[in-house]
Amino acid sequence: METNSSGGGSSSGSLGSSSTMILHNAVIVTMDKESRVFRNGGVFVVQDRIKAIGQSADILQQFSQMADQIIDLQSQILLPGFVNTHVHTSQQLAKGIADDVDLMTWLHDRIWPYESNMTEEDSYISTLLCGIELIHSGVTCFAEAGGQHVSEMAKAVELLGLRACLVQSTMDCGEGLPASWAVRTTDDCIQSQKELYAKHHHAADGRIRIWFGIRQIMNATDRLLLETRDMAREFKTGIHMHVAEIPYENQVVMDTRKVDHGTVTFLDKIEFLQNNLLSAHTVWVNHTEIGLLSRAGVKVSHCPASAMRMLGFAPIKEMLHADICVSLGTDGAPSNNRMSIVDEMYLASLINKGREVFANGTTDPAALPAETVLRMATINGAKSVLWDNDIGSLEAGKKADMVVVDPFSWPMVPVHDRITSLVYCMRTENVVSVMCNGQWVMKNKKILLLMRGRLFQLQDKLLMNF
Amino acid sequence: METNSSGGGSSSGSLGSSSTMILHNAVIVTMDKESRVFRNGGVFVVQDRIKAIGQSADILQQFSQMADQIIDLQSQILLPGFVNTHVHTSQQLAKGIADDVDLMTWLHDRIWPYESNMTEEDSYISTLLCGIELIHSGVTCFAEAGGQHVSEMAKAVELLGLRACLVQSTMDCGEGLPASWAVRTTDDCIQSQKELYAKHHHAADGRIRIWFGIRQIMNATDRLLLETRDMAREFKTGIHMHVAEIPYENQVVMDTRKVDHGTVTFLDKIEFLQNNLLSAHTVWVNHTEIGLLSRAGVKVSHCPASAMRMLGFAPIKEMLHADICVSLGTDGAPSNNRMSIVDEMYLASLINKGREVFANGTTDPAALPAETVLRMATINGAKSVLWDNDIGSLEAGKKADMVVVDPFSWPMVPVHDRITSLVYCMRTENVVSVMCNGQWVMKNKKILLLMRGRLFQLQDKLLMNF
Repeated sequence: METNSSGGGSSSGSLGSSSTMILHNAVIVTMDKESRVFRNGGVFVVQDRIKAIGQSADILQQFSQMADQIIDLQSQILLPGFVNTHVHTSQQLAKGIADDVDLMTWLHDRIWPYESNMTEEDSYISTLLCGIELIHSGVTCFAEAGGQHVSEMAKAVELLGLRACLVQSTMDCGEGLPASWAVRTTDDCIQSQKELYAKHHHAADGRIRIWFGIRQIMNATDRLLLETRDMAREFKTGIHMHVAEIPYENQVVMDTRKVDHGTVTFLDKIEFLQNNLLSAHTVWVNHTEIGLLSRAGVKVSHCPASAMRMLGFAPIKEMLHADICVSLGTDGAPSNNRMSIVDEMYLASLINKGREVFANGTTDPAALPAETVLRMATINGAKSVLWDNDIGSLEAGKKADMVVVDPFSWPMVPVHDRITSLVYCMRTENVVSVMCNGQWVMKNKKILLLMRGRLFQLQDKLLMNF
Repeated sequence: METNSSGGGSSSGSLGSSSTMILHNAVIVTMDKESRVFRNGGVFVVQDRIKAIGQSADILQQFSQMADQIIDLQSQILLPGFVNTHVHTSQQLAKGIADDVDLMTWLHDRIWPYESNMTEEDSYISTLLCGIELIHSGVTCFAEAGGQHVSEMAKAVELLGLRACLVQSTMDCGEGLPASWAVRTTDDCIQSQKELYAKHHHAADGRIRIWFGIRQIMNATDRLLLETRDMAREFKTGIHMHVAEIPYENQVVMDTRKVDHGTVTFLDKIEFLQNNLLSAHTVWVNHTEIGLLSRAGVKVSHCPASAMRMLGFAPIKEMLHADICVSLGTDGAPSNNRMSIVDEMYLASLINKGREVFANGTTDPAALPAETVLRMATINGAKSVLWDNDIGSLEAGKKADMVVVDPFSWPMVPVHDRITSLVYCMRTENVVSVMCNGQWVMKNKKILLLMRGRLFQLQDKLLMNF
């Protein structure tokens, strides 16, 4: 399958990290503006970027002489790397600590005690383990939803070779907070985020960006909201915030902040809704608020599993009709258990078809069709993390963030329609190799770690030590 | 890991098919009446049955001398084989032919033309391919929902080594049927089922049972219903029927059969509700009808993915509260795309937690807890297919239908609670080996086929020929 090019250059090692590379004989689903699919396509990668994409024959003819390595993908499918737009990497070690309990037990008795007691090393290991699971589902970029030890997350992301928008969980008020969190002032919150930005923004060959975070409105003063908004504008970065998760949240906002509906209405009033806001969940919004989100260009991260388990039915179909950019997130392990965008695609379509019974009295098996869902997991994800000039589709000039899918193993046999098969049949089993920024992060199901500029293969049994 | 016993007897081959076998050093989740879990358990299998189960040390001490083979499961989890109580194996080749289309297009333009044009060989290949997918999700027994060529299904089931309740799809009236189906009389339907029973009931070492089928009420005359009921009683077997799938069905029943609600009300009126009825889907039933199903001892097959995609929210929580035996089904590939009880467990819990918003205005993250769901996939499945004296739990005297789950690979790391981890984190990746009737049907992820009394390993690339 792999050959060094006859034209020269030496392969840099058996792990397949080369500075120039052709992948050919692939079904390429580009997710570009024209939704092009190449039945027998090829891509020429130079360093971290796609230099050219097209028919295999053309790519081979034009670039074979320049390629260090030529890989025949044997009719497997090549896709843009998936973008997970809402994930708590710090919560990975808490997978299973809060199953089948009510919301207040979940938050006060399980998650807050866990998170507020994490050491820096816990956070590093948690992000590593989460990243391994994300890579297995074809994720090359994620938006952290907010944890405590961002420097340790950055260390793990650098090692994994992934791309990420990291953010600190920021709270300056609210009831029931653990003691160590309750003492933080607004100034502390702003200052520590500025420091993280200075230290890590554009780190790891540009794979890491620092965003600003608001945990949720019930833990944020108006001053924190406004300073965060202005700081993000000044630093030209994004804001990640949990929005309108439960009816209680809207009620508290109506009672304390004197608006007639809920969080989105209030955020509009203080001009917090901007096109750099990534609004997670966003379940309990009305028609007017959908209009506000749309006009402001706010991005929404839909987390289907977590919503079904704990929050409710977000009006995703209505948001998409209103031209809101909706993407997909897994949320954290204690909210979902499966940190897999592959599973979230399947769920997004199923749940939103079923939601029509709730919203309109009857199911709509045609709601959220496969291509829409695949767009949510790729190009909409890229737009949501403000990185679509570089990722989200396979095009010349973009970063080489790609997933190789094997459609010939049992979950996807037979394939009648490639797009629906990718969204409804594909399982993590079918994700065989993943590349981020021109480097393999998983190859033939083996996770590769990037250390001191070299790739090392993770031993399967290493996981047993966790 | 595997050793021949020092005590004598020779292993019958590298595929591990032995007449006496110890599996030890396993976490055994028995699903028996006491919900026993052995942290370091062992099981002694003689031919097709579990002879003894208990602590590893006790099992080894007592039976090592008698064992042809002793297998150390290295702390992996041993579970009863899952039972899939509603699956159209004939539809496997139609995976992806009817995605994202409305219900009438789905049925009239895609599924009926496909099914009514199947050859016997198509049916054989379809059941084989479906069986491979079922085995990968840990299924050892399934209830066919009804296809045309039952003899070919039986041939495939025999080869796969699975256990199954097979049934012919039976229709003697109704609008819009394909020409080849529209000519069948009631007598044809009854006669062909009697012949299938005579030919295949108890075939394949007793792994195959023949049930009687009713496709759905809109395609069944009263005479077909009543004769099927009486025939099933006479032959001491079960009836598999799609019940109350969509509101339109109930409306047609009210209009044409003069009852005040729908299918279940009518079936009660004609005394069709019996404890040998497996009622698939059963989505649109009211409180009174839940009572009728409960009193009659009817079993319900809940198919979460298919319901979300096409039917609506079944009142599963209410049925369980009414002591109805509810089990899990995948439905057919064009209704779901993932033929995996592992995924259905995850979905069942998520969807029924979310359904509380629809039913009661707020989610209930504690609804359908993991242990309930695991019970639905095992012992409730066994009861639903009227086979719980032999399968559904791991107990001395029952058949050796078992699944080996590896909890040490990334989807299940870390395990805080074994039961929730099995239901919410486990993916088909974690299912490594499956035994049915004392024979391995999958070992270390390799499918084994039983031909002329010997096991052969399916080549991975064979699938590419389909």
